[in-house]
Amino acid sequence: MTTLSFYLYKIEVDPPKPGEVRIKIISSGICGTDKHILEGKDKVPLPAILGHEGAGIVESIGEGVTSVKPGDKVLMFPVPECRECSSCLHPKGNFCLKEKVIPPTGLMLDGTSRFTCRGRKIYHLYGTSTFTEYTVVHEIAVGKIDDGAPMDRVCIISCGVPTGFGAVFNTVTPGSTCVVFGLGGIGSAVVMACKASGASRIIGVDINEEKFPWARDLGVTDCLNPQKLEKPVQEVVVEMTGNGVDFAFEAIGLIDTMVGALESCHPSYGVCVIIGVAPSNSQLIFDPLLLLSGRILKGGAVGGKDSIPKLVTDYMEKKINTDPLITHKFPFKSINKAFELFQAGHW
Amino acid sequence: MTTLSFYLYKIEVDPPKPGEVRIKIISSGICGTDKHILEGKDKVPLPAILGHEGAGIVESIGEGVTSVKPGDKVLMFPVPECRECSSCLHPKGNFCLKEKVIPPTGLMLDGTSRFTCRGRKIYHLYGTSTFTEYTVVHEIAVGKIDDGAPMDRVCIISCGVPTGFGAVFNTVTPGSTCVVFGLGGIGSAVVMACKASGASRIIGVDINEEKFPWARDLGVTDCLNPQKLEKPVQEVVVEMTGNGVDFAFEAIGLIDTMVGALESCHPSYGVCVIIGVAPSNSQLIFDPLLLLSGRILKGGAVGGKDSIPKLVTDYMEKKINTDPLITHKFPFKSINKAFELFQAGHW
Ligand SMILES: NC(=O)c1ccc[n+]([C@@H]2O[C@H](COP(=O)([O-])OP(=O)(O)OC[C@H]3O[C@@H](n4cnc5c(N)ncnc54)[C@H](O)[C@@H]3O)[C@@H](O)[C@H]2O)c1
Ligand SMILES: NC(=O)c1ccc[n+]([C@@H]2O[C@H](COP(=O)([O-])OP(=O)(O)OC[C@H]3O[C@@H](n4cnc5c(N)ncnc54)[C@H](O)[C@@H]3O)[C@@H](O)[C@H]2O)c1
Ligand SMILES: [Zn+2]
Ligand SMILES: [Zn+2]
Ligand SMILES: [Zn+2]
Ligand SMILES: [Zn+2]
Repeated sequence: MTTLSFYLYKIEVDPPKPGEVRIKIISSGICGTDKHILEGKDKVPLPAILGHEGAGIVESIGEGVTSVKPGDKVLMFPVPECRECSSCLHPKGNFCLKEKVIPPTGLMLDGTSRFTCRGRKIYHLYGTSTFTEYTVVHEIAVGKIDDGAPMDRVCIISCGVPTGFGAVFNTVTPGSTCVVFGLGGIGSAVVMACKASGASRIIGVDINEEKFPWARDLGVTDCLNPQKLEKPVQEVVVEMTGNGVDFAFEAIGLIDTMVGALESCHPSYGVCVIIGVAPSNSQLIFDPLLLLSGRILKGGAVGGKDSIPKLVTDYMEKKINTDPLITHKFPFKSINKAFELFQAGHW
Repeated sequence: MTTLSFYLYKIEVDPPKPGEVRIKIISSGICGTDKHILEGKDKVPLPAILGHEGAGIVESIGEGVTSVKPGDKVLMFPVPECRECSSCLHPKGNFCLKEKVIPPTGLMLDGTSRFTCRGRKIYHLYGTSTFTEYTVVHEIAVGKIDDGAPMDRVCIISCGVPTGFGAVFNTVTPGSTCVVFGLGGIGSAVVMACKASGASRIIGVDINEEKFPWARDLGVTDCLNPQKLEKPVQEVVVEMTGNGVDFAFEAIGLIDTMVGALESCHPSYGVCVIIGVAPSNSQLIFDPLLLLSGRILKGGAVGGKDSIPKLVTDYMEKKINTDPLITHKFPFKSINKAFELFQAGHW
């Protein structure tokens, strides 16, 4: 497997321009999307400062910034919330159009970067870039959180948690059957949310059996390893559930498992939610008759400015417990070690 | 274009077995799906008696049939409603699993046919077969309608109308923007339902401009002929609406227009409903990132036993007017003439 790597460099971080915020990063999570980028599957402008799940403290603010001030504890959001675009203004919209997230530009809204290394431009990632001591983000991509929030724990509420929870809440109904493809960070958050939503059966699918005891603790009732089955895992899921599950989630990022998730659904009312990010320029291919009988196929991305600080408050008030999603902690300088473990599947 | 054809034959129609109903057909609609089958695009077991939009009078009933009796006026449904399977019992289910509709078997539930011609077995179509003087259907695929219902008008409420209306009602919201790909029978029903749902803008897409004046009468606000545009029609729709429509409907049955409909949708909250039946064994191919931002892709099939007789009552009470969907009438023996006109696009 070819993989890129992280190098520690001294970089220049420009002051924030109007509408921007400079942040001292305290803690950052590692998301499967960072791994995809390292492995060259998701194409983004490079060289870049990766990382997009970050908790930090506002160091300085640009002209016109009003929602945060120096010293505030904040989370950064890879999908911002401008509150002005057609998506932000729509009751069901959750994917602000102000920054071009798909495909990412790697630049601030004015078309420039705030990072340079020995005079050379370094790109941003998803308007966040958290694997750095300081970063600059747009005000629309940052939200103040509770002063008492433990930064090393709530940083994952910046992407993994809202993505996983957001895909489930308001979708999964009590007593329903679910299948979750992929039991990594996102899949685990999905499992927790399915359980909290009252799902009666949660089937977990992963090729790494190391994840199974962990997944069972979170609420998975049946674990399936597709590599140990004699037929496609979706056929097994359909047999286990009579005609297919009520809700299927894909949290891996592969075309095959996306189609598998769709085929695992009940033909008439099954809902398939694609969370995984497929490799750049890949194509989902399936017989459209799969939809004709009533299946629903949709995607889900991270929630925004309104919902994320609220999840931190829920965590502080012990309404949700996201601590089981934190498996390891490393000092910033050991980031390559953290990714080695992640890529080896010990996570 | 190769096309199959209809031949008039004297056939034997067996009496109904237990749970079956023999019906004298009074009127039948012609649906795009029949045309697909004639053109060899949708594969069904042949030779068969086609036609699946039928209004008739019960001639005799098999053992155990209780919901209809000889003399009742009825409509037949290509998708039945058994009220026992997981789909029928589910509040959102609309695709009974009792008969295998996709792919169709061409046989009754006991694995045999009720039609023979000079001793040779003739297949059923979608459990209906309405291009005949008499047919046999399962009780679960038939519903009694108002005694006064005009058969030559309500027959289309058997497939085209519930399909088009069903795809729209409970989906399209007042003030929303819609695009309808295909302005044939189904697309026209979709347009009427979008208008009735309060859509503020309805963009109609068809390569046959003969349909445009007609479509405008039904509620289309903007007509687009993809063959006369300099860029893909979905790009034009996105430009016309800012970022894409709220709701897109595909009522043609081609892969390209299915992807076009999806791409016409607003990236964050657009809903794309596939109604068209693509040629057998074809594959829908698109970048899954189209879904990640929030687009919803779903399909829609005809409604069942509960909703269809209710639509006839609505028609009788003038709550809905489906008459504009009836463009021509032919005696049964001129069926090939009707299909010639249909295939030539004068419909
Ligand atoms: N939609 C969004 O907004 C969003 C946000 C964050 C992450 N993501 C995406 O979600 C996906 C999962 O992210 P993550 O952080 O949980 O990654 P992860 O690496 O922690 O988890 C992936 C899991 O999938 C398993 N897996 C790999 N190949 C498999 C296969 N063929 N069959 C079954 N299981 C297999 C792995 O063993 C692992 O447990 C990634 O594609 C990521 O890009 C999307
Ligand atoms: N989901 C269901 O339950 C269900 C029920 C009935 C019909 N259908 C399907 O719905 C579709 C439409 O049926 P119909 O009865 O309205 O057929 P139709 O032939 O009356 O209408 C199709 C329309 O599409 C137009 N068209 C063809 N190619 C086009 C292109 N490339 N771009 C733009 N327009 C194009 C034609 O000019 C025509 O006006 C068919 O695929 C049929 O099988 C599905
Ligand atoms: Zn992420
Ligand atoms: Zn916005
Ligand atoms: Zn039809
Ligand atoms: Zn049923």
